[in-house]
Amino acid sequence: MTLNLAGSARSVAVLGAGSWGTTFAKILADAATAAGTPREIRLWGRRGEVVEQVNNSHRNHQYLKDVPLPGSITASTDVADVLRGADLVVLAVPAQSLRPQLREWRHLIAPDAVVVSLMKGLELGTDARMSQVISEELGLEAGRIAVVSGPNLAMEIAREEPTASVVACADSAVAGWLARSCTAPYFRPYTTSDVVGVEIGGIVKNVIALAVGICEGKEMGDNTKASVITRGLAETSRLALALGGEAKTMAGLAGLGDLVATCSSPLSRNHTAGRLLGQGLTLEEVGQKMTQTAEGIKSGQAVHELAGKLGVEMPITAAVVAVLAGKLSVDQLGPVLLSRELKPEGDD
Amino acid sequence: MTLNLAGSARSVAVLGAGSWGTTFAKILADAATAAGTPREIRLWGRRGEVVEQVNNSHRNHQYLKDVPLPGSITASTDVADVLRGADLVVLAVPAQSLRPQLREWRHLIAPDAVVVSLMKGLELGTDARMSQVISEELGLEAGRIAVVSGPNLAMEIAREEPTASVVACADSAVAGWLARSCTAPYFRPYTTSDVVGVEIGGIVKNVIALAVGICEGKEMGDNTKASVITRGLAETSRLALALGGEAKTMAGLAGLGDLVATCSSPLSRNHTAGRLLGQGLTLEEVGQKMTQTAEGIKSGQAVHELAGKLGVEMPITAAVVAVLAGKLSVDQLGPVLLSRELKPEGDD
Repeated sequence: MTLNLAGSARSVAVLGAGSWGTTFAKILADAATAAGTPREIRLWGRRGEVVEQVNNSHRNHQYLKDVPLPGSITASTDVADVLRGADLVVLAVPAQSLRPQLREWRHLIAPDAVVVSLMKGLELGTDARMSQVISEELGLEAGRIAVVSGPNLAMEIAREEPTASVVACADSAVAGWLARSCTAPYFRPYTTSDVVGVEIGGIVKNVIALAVGICEGKEMGDNTKASVITRGLAETSRLALALGGEAKTMAGLAGLGDLVATCSSPLSRNHTAGRLLGQGLTLEEVGQKMTQTAEGIKSGQAVHELAGKLGVEMPITAAVVAVLAGKLSVDQLGPVLLSRELKPEGDD
Repeated sequence: MTLNLAGSARSVAVLGAGSWGTTFAKILADAATAAGTPREIRLWGRRGEVVEQVNNSHRNHQYLKDVPLPGSITASTDVADVLRGADLVVLAVPAQSLRPQLREWRHLIAPDAVVVSLMKGLELGTDARMSQVISEELGLEAGRIAVVSGPNLAMEIAREEPTASVVACADSAVAGWLARSCTAPYFRPYTTSDVVGVEIGGIVKNVIALAVGICEGKEMGDNTKASVITRGLAETSRLALALGGEAKTMAGLAGLGDLVATCSSPLSRNHTAGRLLGQGLTLEEVGQKMTQTAEGIKSGQAVHELAGKLGVEMPITAAVVAVLAGKLSVDQLGPVLLSRELKPEGDD
């Protein structure tokens, strides 16, 4: 199989039938229809009832309610069937289970397929970004690994509300190929080569969204939340720059855009989890109330450790991690976020 | 009168008894109390009933509802009384009336007073920023003119919700003096010398807030709004840089922070005006529904003209101005904001 980089994806495997994986399958299907290009889209899900629902009633009720899915999407629990012949492999599984999953799947993935991460997490223990886990486990060159991120609340995209996004790949021809593959009437991707910046933006925003959610749960105002978002993006940028990312990425859709969308939306899991913590629920109670993982709860610790190794100051992340560990009460969080010396802005 | 720059303001005149002027008078009073410093604070208002209410019941009902004001604030309709002996003069009048007001007041302002603008507008016809109008009309050196801006919804600050802000002055000693003068338990100012960046951030965010409000009125989602905020800050930054401002200011509290607070809050007039436009009201109907000016409606045209003169591309501002002029319908705005060629992000 050789990719035609002037064209777009012909055969796609989407691994993970949660809200974002299923929505991205819909984008890829609608993009092919809009472009008049033939494309097979196969969705892998762990659970038989989800797979059956996608195949029989073109719905994924648990994650996307009554949104109709294109008939060109087929689903299966058999990952070998789904991956067979795929020139584009989209990964949308929980961040912490990616590595063991890839070890099961790697012999099924074509050696020159493009592998795309939709995931926004940092691996606990190794502090590895998802593109690094993919590189390590599949042995792919950087030009075959891509990331999609941006202000992309899945439910809104599923409802076809206009959305912009960022496709990142070290190889700009592959980024263009992927962008063409996922340009739907309601979904507009921009391209960049800054994979690190795009990933860090997506990872840390979940931690900042927890902080903003806590402020909201404590009934703090929009001034405070805007300050936490601003200073949160500043610490995200410091981390991205230390890892080789670019400042303009952080000011763009995958940095600022994703952060603002997540912190504004009642649909965001991390934002919701923070709000429940701010209202006084324990971490266990929050876990029981929510059906899907709030990734920031897991990634927060990994971000904090990575920042420590690199000597990057991330006071909001540190405060969130302290709250999650039970070492700081949510009542103390607000004062901690604002209690800094009088000094020039940006001197930190 | 000589300023003691190691201290803080002793005698303050606040000109303008709207929501932000009155709230800033409260900040200055509470700051003096917290620091144990004696300070006189006199508030000038145009209308006798507001002045009487401040003096007799320590309230400004129309703008700040039942928020109690410190007893150390006195009010008057006599501007000469208010300005007499003031080492700090705070200006909080409508942007378009600043120049004629200053012509009336200039002989009453002490030659070495520090003059602070709380205003966020650009003068129609001249495209002058408020600090430029102050400089032109009062003949002050740059080191005596300052600007305060940030994610500062007045009503939230009046309720003493924790807020951060930015004090900008070309003379860093004066910036520090002013920051000390307005550091209250709930109000934390940071300092910068980038007056241009701070002013442009405050001016353009009102125009972007109109765009975000229109999207909201059209019931577009958080993905779209976050994209408009992101691309709106990008065009704001392009204008600020063309005028000599700094990128880091735009990423800070007076750029990103103020924009996010304004676009999140139901308290914002510009955001509210945009929402009403998006719901299909005419500009006249919006004007009738609102008691206070939505500054972006007036400044939008001036920003658009300034951008044209400087050759700076500001597509969101251009679209908002076209909507306000009746040349573009609110239904066409969304597609205009998203209809750009597939290309690398940041190439614009």
